[in-house]
Amino acid sequence: MEKSIFYHAGCPVCVSAEHDIIHLVGEPNVEVVHLGEDQGRIAEAEKAGVKSVPALVTPNGNVLHINFGASLADVKG
Amino acid sequence: MEKSIFYHAGCPVCVSAEHDIIHLVGEPNVEVVHLGEDQGRIAEAEKAGVKSVPALVTPNGNVLHINFGASLADVKG
Repeated sequence: MEKSIFYHAGCPVCVSAEHDIIHLVGEPNVEVVHLGEDQGRIAEAEKAGVKSVPALVTPNGNVLHINFGASLADVKG
Repeated sequence: MEKSIFYHAGCPVCVSAEHDIIHLVGEPNVEVVHLGEDQGRIAEAEKAGVKSVPALVTPNGNVLHINFGASLADVKG
């Protein structure tokens, strides 16, 4: 299975969702990207359709926005 | 692993998220509940903390609200 990508920004909502997603999907199946620390990947996340974090981009390119931690605009600062 | 419960109400956003979640988590690991057809389970969903559908309640009781299809109030009609 191709990997999903979990984008987050270190917020409490993000960290909680990260634990749940890794538990459910399996750690080897998820790449975790911290957009606060890795701002170079914000453009990639936007291109994938991510509007807010935490969000999971599935292997087939769908974006699942999970709960609501912060908008991508907030992450850009 | 205990099952997660995926609550939805048949909306397009719900159906799309359902396919993604079942693909990611594995069908045997998810119970799918259609609250529009099974209104008797709305109270259970509310008690679990579900505010909108689609939502996934994890085995440890966390609620992941995924994207936004409809509020639980709308589902009650």
